[in-house]
Amino acid sequence: MNFCSNCAAPLARRVPPGDSLPRFVCDQCGEIHYQNPKLVVGALPEWEGRLLLCRRAIEPRYGYWTLPAGFMENDETAGDAALRETLEEAGARIELIDAYTMISVPMVNQVHLFYRARLLDLDFAPGEESLDVALFEQAELPWKDIAFRTVGLTLKHWVADRTRGSFPFRAEDVRPR
Amino acid sequence: MNFCSNCAAPLARRVPPGDSLPRFVCDQCGEIHYQNPKLVVGALPEWEGRLLLCRRAIEPRYGYWTLPAGFMENDETAGDAALRETLEEAGARIELIDAYTMISVPMVNQVHLFYRARLLDLDFAPGEESLDVALFEQAELPWKDIAFRTVGLTLKHWVADRTRGSFPFRAEDVRPR
Repeated sequence: MNFCSNCAAPLARRVPPGDSLPRFVCDQCGEIHYQNPKLVVGALPEWEGRLLLCRRAIEPRYGYWTLPAGFMENDETAGDAALRETLEEAGARIELIDAYTMISVPMVNQVHLFYRARLLDLDFAPGEESLDVALFEQAELPWKDIAFRTVGLTLKHWVADRTRGSFPFRAEDVRPR
Repeated sequence: MNFCSNCAAPLARRVPPGDSLPRFVCDQCGEIHYQNPKLVVGALPEWEGRLLLCRRAIEPRYGYWTLPAGFMENDETAGDAALRETLEEAGARIELIDAYTMISVPMVNQVHLFYRARLLDLDFAPGEESLDVALFEQAELPWKDIAFRTVGLTLKHWVADRTRGSFPFRAEDVRPR
């Protein structure tokens, strides 16, 4: 961030009066440009005990498997985002069951949120950002080829919670290894 | 958003190739400037059945009561944000019990997340953004003077869940009235 998006003047980085953190501030128009974490929202679409995963056609983690998920957009709810991303990445229609995991990833300034969901039909197909979309039995889950730690953690919880028959909501963090 | 924060050229607003929504794009350096919802994170600090609320010293909703909460910052987890905001706005130290409500507010591009929490001592005091901080018995909660719908909804759930003795996580939305 070099220039003010409001007036195009060069930005300075300092702690504004009354604040405690350095921000990008514009000395010409006075605008303070805050930067905040983004929400990545996705789903665990289930069909008769199997889970729908997508193989990524984009970086990062090209070729690895993931749950359908992506950046939440303005003007939508978190639930809207889960439905939209599942449709975009897997061509799949779902209904949401419940929010399931919410995992902070402070290293990349993201919070990842996954909903449990029911796949409504088998008419799915990879979107532009996916190489492949497939249903996996629990025993077939591609543990070595999972794209992101938050997805692996969510799948691990899902497997353990299935055995117990209850899926409590989990708020967690991942930290640098 | 008028100018590119990377190179200061004027921005255009259009749908980039492969995208489905209009974005602010820079034709000079190629940067796409995404805008996404922000997380507001807070807590319900409890002390012997009473809840700690703050009376706002800033707009919007100056003078109204709210739970301690604010914008999550980069480099922190959602839990970190709840602790920090409670310390900043109420001068209060808490320990988190569990995530409790997560409410999308698409009209303002926010998601509000509240944790149940235990107040660790009675040594609290209003921060710069609060006029007053006080503990409320359930029967004394200032229902007519609550700052935000997400706070009112969270308090309503808290009252109902206390009667039942269980506090399930709730993912909800508020929509335009």
